[in-house]
Amino acid sequence: MTVEANESYYAVIFSSQRTEGDNGYGRMADRMEQLAAEQPGFLGVESVRDAAGSGITISYWDSLEAIRNWKENPLHQTAQEKGKQDWYHNYNVKICKVERAYSSN
Amino acid sequence: MTVEANESYYAVIFSSQRTEGDNGYGRMADRMEQLAAEQPGFLGVESVRDAAGSGITISYWDSLEAIRNWKENPLHQTAQEKGKQDWYHNYNVKICKVERAYSSN
Repeated sequence: MTVEANESYYAVIFSSQRTEGDNGYGRMADRMEQLAAEQPGFLGVESVRDAAGSGITISYWDSLEAIRNWKENPLHQTAQEKGKQDWYHNYNVKICKVERAYSSN
Repeated sequence: MTVEANESYYAVIFSSQRTEGDNGYGRMADRMEQLAAEQPGFLGVESVRDAAGSGITISYWDSLEAIRNWKENPLHQTAQEKGKQDWYHNYNVKICKVERAYSSN
């Protein structure tokens, strides 16, 4: 992801605990990552899940409007419903404004 | 972590790729988590690392000043140096203002 330091952008932090079994999750997760990447204002995503099912996914967007549009995308809404019902014991979402960023290389 | 929706608070997103082997990392990580929790303004932390060594740690703080003080803590600075030299292939840090949060339960 290439973002100039003086542009403002946003992060959506999604922390979750997966239920047991796949139940169609893997396929939908791949689809959602692909679909998100096609949305206006999408800047990038990073995602980690450990063997015990704890996960953090952070997607980056250029505006709050882009985040809202993605949340309301019909296919994404279907995925969100399945997430609530089948895939996550629990999750939380935080919408953040990135104020500063630096990296080791 | 209990944070009222109308308080402003901050997240530090630390994404990293670990090197092979422990090299004292596990012990120091435990110490740093304990030490961070004792700092003024600390609100909480969540951390996930997968089997391939990709990790995301997010710590939450009540102000930018609390984040700066923690970054400058002498023991934490020692850990940061070891991190650069031995523990991480690469990492990036983002300092964010949490604008909205919600959870499934």
